[in-house]
Amino acid sequence: MLIPSDKLREECGVVAIYGHPEASKLAYLSLYALQHRGQESAGIAASNGEQLQLHKAMGLVSDIFTADVLALIPGSLAIGHTRYSTTGDSALLNAQPIMVECNKGKIALAHNGNLTNAAEVRSHLDQAGSIFQTTSDTEVVVHLIARSREQTLGDAMADSLRRIEGAFSLVMLTPDRIFAARDPRGFRPLVMGRISGQAAHRADTIVFASETCAFDLIGATYEREVKPGELVIVGPEGVHSRFYSAQQPQSSCIFEHVYFSRPDSIVFGKAVQQTRDAMGRQLALESPVDADIVVPVPDSGVTAALGFSYQSGIPIQFGLIRNHYVGRTFIEPEQRVRDFGVKLKLNPVRNVLEGKRVVLIDDSIVRGTTSRKIVRMVRESGAKEVHMRVSCPPTISPCYYGVDTPSKNQLIAANKSVDEIREYIGADSLAYLSLEGLRKAAGDGEEHSYCTACYTGKYPTNIVGVEDIAPAMAAGD
Amino acid sequence: MLIPSDKLREECGVVAIYGHPEASKLAYLSLYALQHRGQESAGIAASNGEQLQLHKAMGLVSDIFTADVLALIPGSLAIGHTRYSTTGDSALLNAQPIMVECNKGKIALAHNGNLTNAAEVRSHLDQAGSIFQTTSDTEVVVHLIARSREQTLGDAMADSLRRIEGAFSLVMLTPDRIFAARDPRGFRPLVMGRISGQAAHRADTIVFASETCAFDLIGATYEREVKPGELVIVGPEGVHSRFYSAQQPQSSCIFEHVYFSRPDSIVFGKAVQQTRDAMGRQLALESPVDADIVVPVPDSGVTAALGFSYQSGIPIQFGLIRNHYVGRTFIEPEQRVRDFGVKLKLNPVRNVLEGKRVVLIDDSIVRGTTSRKIVRMVRESGAKEVHMRVSCPPTISPCYYGVDTPSKNQLIAANKSVDEIREYIGADSLAYLSLEGLRKAAGDGEEHSYCTACYTGKYPTNIVGVEDIAPAMAAGD
Amino acid sequence: MLIPSDKLREECGVVAIYGHPEASKLAYLSLYALQHRGQESAGIAASNGEQLQLHKAMGLVSDIFTADVLALIPGSLAIGHTRYSTTGDSALLNAQPIMVECNKGKIALAHNGNLTNAAEVRSHLDQAGSIFQTTSDTEVVVHLIARSREQTLGDAMADSLRRIEGAFSLVMLTPDRIFAARDPRGFRPLVMGRISGQAAHRADTIVFASETCAFDLIGATYEREVKPGELVIVGPEGVHSRFYSAQQPQSSCIFEHVYFSRPDSIVFGKAVQQTRDAMGRQLALESPVDADIVVPVPDSGVTAALGFSYQSGIPIQFGLIRNHYVGRTFIEPEQRVRDFGVKLKLNPVRNVLEGKRVVLIDDSIVRGTTSRKIVRMVRESGAKEVHMRVSCPPTISPCYYGVDTPSKNQLIAANKSVDEIREYIGADSLAYLSLEGLRKAAGDGEEHSYCTACYTGKYPTNIVGVEDIAPAMAAGD
Amino acid sequence: MLIPSDKLREECGVVAIYGHPEASKLAYLSLYALQHRGQESAGIAASNGEQLQLHKAMGLVSDIFTADVLALIPGSLAIGHTRYSTTGDSALLNAQPIMVECNKGKIALAHNGNLTNAAEVRSHLDQAGSIFQTTSDTEVVVHLIARSREQTLGDAMADSLRRIEGAFSLVMLTPDRIFAARDPRGFRPLVMGRISGQAAHRADTIVFASETCAFDLIGATYEREVKPGELVIVGPEGVHSRFYSAQQPQSSCIFEHVYFSRPDSIVFGKAVQQTRDAMGRQLALESPVDADIVVPVPDSGVTAALGFSYQSGIPIQFGLIRNHYVGRTFIEPEQRVRDFGVKLKLNPVRNVLEGKRVVLIDDSIVRGTTSRKIVRMVRESGAKEVHMRVSCPPTISPCYYGVDTPSKNQLIAANKSVDEIREYIGADSLAYLSLEGLRKAAGDGEEHSYCTACYTGKYPTNIVGVEDIAPAMAAGD
Repeated sequence: MLIPSDKLREECGVVAIYGHPEASKLAYLSLYALQHRGQESAGIAASNGEQLQLHKAMGLVSDIFTADVLALIPGSLAIGHTRYSTTGDSALLNAQPIMVECNKGKIALAHNGNLTNAAEVRSHLDQAGSIFQTTSDTEVVVHLIARSREQTLGDAMADSLRRIEGAFSLVMLTPDRIFAARDPRGFRPLVMGRISGQAAHRADTIVFASETCAFDLIGATYEREVKPGELVIVGPEGVHSRFYSAQQPQSSCIFEHVYFSRPDSIVFGKAVQQTRDAMGRQLALESPVDADIVVPVPDSGVTAALGFSYQSGIPIQFGLIRNHYVGRTFIEPEQRVRDFGVKLKLNPVRNVLEGKRVVLIDDSIVRGTTSRKIVRMVRESGAKEVHMRVSCPPTISPCYYGVDTPSKNQLIAANKSVDEIREYIGADSLAYLSLEGLRKAAGDGEEHSYCTACYTGKYPTNIVGVEDIAPAMAAGD
Repeated sequence: MLIPSDKLREECGVVAIYGHPEASKLAYLSLYALQHRGQESAGIAASNGEQLQLHKAMGLVSDIFTADVLALIPGSLAIGHTRYSTTGDSALLNAQPIMVECNKGKIALAHNGNLTNAAEVRSHLDQAGSIFQTTSDTEVVVHLIARSREQTLGDAMADSLRRIEGAFSLVMLTPDRIFAARDPRGFRPLVMGRISGQAAHRADTIVFASETCAFDLIGATYEREVKPGELVIVGPEGVHSRFYSAQQPQSSCIFEHVYFSRPDSIVFGKAVQQTRDAMGRQLALESPVDADIVVPVPDSGVTAALGFSYQSGIPIQFGLIRNHYVGRTFIEPEQRVRDFGVKLKLNPVRNVLEGKRVVLIDDSIVRGTTSRKIVRMVRESGAKEVHMRVSCPPTISPCYYGVDTPSKNQLIAANKSVDEIREYIGADSLAYLSLEGLRKAAGDGEEHSYCTACYTGKYPTNIVGVEDIAPAMAAGD
Repeated sequence: MLIPSDKLREECGVVAIYGHPEASKLAYLSLYALQHRGQESAGIAASNGEQLQLHKAMGLVSDIFTADVLALIPGSLAIGHTRYSTTGDSALLNAQPIMVECNKGKIALAHNGNLTNAAEVRSHLDQAGSIFQTTSDTEVVVHLIARSREQTLGDAMADSLRRIEGAFSLVMLTPDRIFAARDPRGFRPLVMGRISGQAAHRADTIVFASETCAFDLIGATYEREVKPGELVIVGPEGVHSRFYSAQQPQSSCIFEHVYFSRPDSIVFGKAVQQTRDAMGRQLALESPVDADIVVPVPDSGVTAALGFSYQSGIPIQFGLIRNHYVGRTFIEPEQRVRDFGVKLKLNPVRNVLEGKRVVLIDDSIVRGTTSRKIVRMVRESGAKEVHMRVSCPPTISPCYYGVDTPSKNQLIAANKSVDEIREYIGADSLAYLSLEGLRKAAGDGEEHSYCTACYTGKYPTNIVGVEDIAPAMAAGD
Repeated sequence: MLIPSDKLREECGVVAIYGHPEASKLAYLSLYALQHRGQESAGIAASNGEQLQLHKAMGLVSDIFTADVLALIPGSLAIGHTRYSTTGDSALLNAQPIMVECNKGKIALAHNGNLTNAAEVRSHLDQAGSIFQTTSDTEVVVHLIARSREQTLGDAMADSLRRIEGAFSLVMLTPDRIFAARDPRGFRPLVMGRISGQAAHRADTIVFASETCAFDLIGATYEREVKPGELVIVGPEGVHSRFYSAQQPQSSCIFEHVYFSRPDSIVFGKAVQQTRDAMGRQLALESPVDADIVVPVPDSGVTAALGFSYQSGIPIQFGLIRNHYVGRTFIEPEQRVRDFGVKLKLNPVRNVLEGKRVVLIDDSIVRGTTSRKIVRMVRESGAKEVHMRVSCPPTISPCYYGVDTPSKNQLIAANKSVDEIREYIGADSLAYLSLEGLRKAAGDGEEHSYCTACYTGKYPTNIVGVEDIAPAMAAGD
């Protein structure tokens, strides 16, 4: 059996390194720190100033990139990509970076996000005689660049970015430059950092990544976000920035704070761990409960649970232990063990739970199937009461901006009331964080404003026709 | 580079299944739950009532045992073993279970522990013409069984167990029986459980494992420990128990509670998580500190940190984030990143640590190298003060009972005073839990008494000559 | 060390299957029979009537295609490709079939040959905004198809084929059709066959392959060659043929008969084994020698040696034995064994050679390095005289039509006279088959006329600029 | 499907190297030359003068031994073993060399042959308390050595060799010596050679191998056979020989000449290729036939076919072509292709066979199933008549001396008359070489006398009880 999961999945991480003798090694380490953003495949393209070399494969970063492989992708410029997990043989086709040769020269491109007008653009390109070798929307971007009549690559890229819609944080590599761009609404994160030149004769290394945790491992310092609508070009002439698009109302993905990003990252200018702590505190204020212990659903629920515990004064206890050796598939006994799939990952601790009124803290409920099993396991381990508290609002609408959400009819909150969900999962009480509470915890309106479409169904961009297209095109990034 | 670790390593886990149509599958799942006790190799031997089949290989349980492999080891009886990680080609030779044929028939044996008289016994066997194919002390046991003049296998095993000294929790498989035995002092854990027969016509399944967490995954109920000096035989005639040895003062390994066992296990009759919580509380009582936040060194320090936090009233914060995708080796940049090895596993969270007086809680300091790096990272992330608290006493003596300890000259506490260690690791203050405090937290003297030789240098058995032999013989289990 | 070889290498085999429930399995078996035409990579694309699925990988056909893999490429139409061996990481990129989506729909294409105007065409496409993901000339063809203004795919393909020059035998797959085409001069072989429908309700299966030996394994009957300049389309409406180009003087590759094709194949309408036998006979007539035994250089020299033996009356003996377990790389002792690389493949038999005047028969001498070692080995095994006879003329010019030849300065016959070569390889006498003799043996002028450019330097097509481009573009097929 | 074969299989090859800085590399190359003697597993044990290191694995020699692996088995002494192909998971257990530690020190042993009293000896050892980890009869030998009361290893080995019966060619490695021994009847071959010391300061390297073809590849010179009943010991004191047993009537395996050995080897003092040529000539004399062409069944029938052709004056033609890329398993189409399994390996050439009266020459018929398919294929390719000639007598009895023969009821010649076999395989005529003819061709009575039990049922040793035991014990070598 495949190990079941009831989490939404991020659809990629990207990194870029400019000006370091071990560029592909730093890209590899950065990808490793972003492994949580995609475990299906990973790739790195590097340039030695003249030639681009690419290696990509299915699997985890640390399995794909050996010393032998890194030796095949030398140079001082590199970009990297890690991709979420799907099945099927054609998956390698859609792995990134995508590398092509065209009239603008050799380019490699990696992309986090999802283009909402990819099908339309592809159809135009198709009519004009372009061929497509992947089902990834990223291929659309390189075609636009190749067909742009602008003379310089910077202009051609700006031109192309204006033609695409949706969510994208892009890094691009040419023989001697790195390009980094973010969509005008800033859906997905993209940050810029710097490693100081270690000797008089060496300039600083400029780095880009989806999250700051990638900088920590390679000793880079976080400088700033790439801004919505910005295109940063790093080359022999230094770092140049331009805005290829008029700024639009910002709509950064609030779910990066709820679940996707690593707790040690800064995304959209805020420390994730502090946001999650604030969510837990807010949740305790909004939906208090009389209970003996707070039990996080590991690992993602832990920080919010800590906030809940502080606010409520109810002590936190690790009543569910996570197994850290979980593989991707598992052989199940024919004589079924109840809740087997969940037990592979989580084991309830009877001595902690027995006789207790328990508040379970989780960060989201998608289909509800896992929550149901967890509540049952906790109850069977002797808990007297099980109260579920969720550190975000009910998920009622799919995402078209780079998150792998199930279709609406599989989202339990799109089809059941909170009380029906409570009954389905078997909890004594259930409460979600309010949208207002979530916004407050994430600091909405301070520096950033957020996209909350998955909780409201109100999409910040036009998505006509997108839902239908979804199955036909891999949200390849 | 190999990912560095400054933890002591457990030297194996064992499981046994009697009377289940999917015995090898249950053994596999049980081993998977015991994966933390050994990641080098794993093996399962099973019997279909007549033939024994064995599969063992280097690697993790979930990689070794595919559906195809499990199909090769059919039957309703099985034993399994998981082994800690070393290097070298001959490692597979020493993987367990060991399976032989002798005048007592076909037997397979798996062993957790370390025999302190293995070299002496081996020398006798050698003189008598025995041949040895491994360097594991477990092979000594099967030779003793083969050479025993006792008529029945039960008698031969009891006879053999009386001739060996040291720490051992053994499971043995014959075509139609499971044997489980523990050394007379009960160094290493071994528990017994039961899966109720699911139909009228099927008897209960009897299971044994190093820790109860193995039972949870397969739906077995914990019944009791195998007692020190006890030999349990399960066969067509039912479950029979005998004491092959007069009981001796008990000396269970206290480090199972400090670090080795999973927090969701019950070992030596006590829930590990509660013991660790008590250690943290006791540590706060013994060595209080005026600070802003308690930060656990994940993952093993978390429960003790929670106890410390409750007792001290200082809030706990996750100021160090663990990377869950750590492989076994890593490619390091040539231009060194400071504290790179530790950063692969742990990332400090500046927003949590900055400007704070921090109490770091860890469960042990072995060589001190990792602690030094962690303290430095925490300080560089802006902590004003860093106070280290360790939830056990200073480790001053190697273990000869089945734990992989470095030699005495590498144990920092054997060579430096607490204040020298504090200076070495760069902490503002350092305190260890007292031996009395540890004993109290672990409930010493209640039902169990503990071996604390690693903290005291006082060994419960004769270990003359053992230290010299150690390098020559694999503590193969 | 890489196992050395001094043979020219064929640059691919292609197959296509129309109308069989196990199309990809038959494609796999056919490729397996064509394995000698390329051992680097192999791929199969299949259609279930609507979707195309593709699998390609580095390695041998029998290693790449397992039952699991074949299950991923279902359907009743399939094409396959096997490719010669190069090194380097990007090799998989250039593996075939190449599969794309364009305004003509989904197509997959596989190609044996080499386009002599690929760089020029690519440059035009490039200017027009096409992007290239591979360095294979095959990608040029799919771009031409995509950009053709013809309405039907058949017309678009004919249009595209008229724009390319050089050698090509192509098979193409769409959801419901197979296209097979050959260049107007018929450089490379391509044959068509049929498997009778095994039941009333099933139509015949139409198959294409580079050589007839692929038909034998799958029980297909050879029908005819695809003719130079012909495009055969097989679809729901049956088999249709058209000539997309006016016929040009035919120039089939004579080296297919000399060395490339399997001896059990019929290529260009002639049985290869008979052609080789005739070459040997002709060689004996032209360059007789007074000797005791004829010794073939296995395996490719055996048939010509037989012909030589019959004609000359000198008995054939197997004085060189081939090792059938040769891998691709080998570990060489540091203390060099003389002629080690050749000895891995060929072992001289002293008892056969000792005291004998030996005629060695080989089918070609490229660089001369291997011949030199073979002559030396034979002499050291006691041969009194060693006379080398080669069953084709001296190779003096590189091929631009799909054969992997070294550059001119590495071809020994381009740089030395026959007597200088004789001296270099250390033979007592050396003779090559005359060009006239080769033509006669291959039946030149009967039904086919041949390209003999590698022996004459006279190329049947314009090759201006081709030599310079060669290194920049993979003759990917 | 597994690729079918109707050949008897050799049960191993052995090699030993004494006194060369790259001993394991030479052992690897020697094993590679002996790959035809066993494709299931291979192993090498080497000594650096003090320590023995062993590596063995399933697979082909060139796949198992990489440079990395050879680096793990350093030293100037080495022995190696290659083993025939069986199935099943426990196969690695039985791979050789077997390496043990006992009161005589560390020893590694490799064995070609089969002990006819292994079960009896094992039973005695078993009673005395020995344990067995494999089902290989080789393990019996090391137990005997360990239990021998002789003081020196040489005496202990001689003592042990006297206690075993049957066929054995053994090589043994200790930290500083190589032992090579052959059973008193000389069933299986074992030869000794020498590599001259390449410098003043280096002594000669002494080598042993099953066949001389292993010497050719490593540049060693063949010196002599190890004699039946001889034990050669090579150590710091030089090369010493002793006869541990009174000589017995010699009975070397004649089938080594018929099929097993490589044609370029000298075995039992005779060049194999010359013996096979003589068999073919003799066969033509005994059983002439009026035909147009002689067609060998490749590869093993080729030399005999050449002899037949010369004697008869009928020209030889390669009417059956062997595919050199045959893997071990194959995916068969569900819609059966007739004679598919044979076609994977052999393809008939219609142009050669059509309208001809064909003499097929093969070296043996075991079950007859393959011959039947070959005759049918040849006939379907247009042959007018098919006459089968076999270059040895009918195989009527199983071998107990190290050859993997099917049981008697599967041997077609044990159950049918020659005419019935002819009818079964569908030939127009069938003749076997007579026993006298075979003896004459192999030079029986000159220097060697042969075991011909497989043709006569007359075994040179007592084999009471052997047949019953066979299935229970792996003829592990």
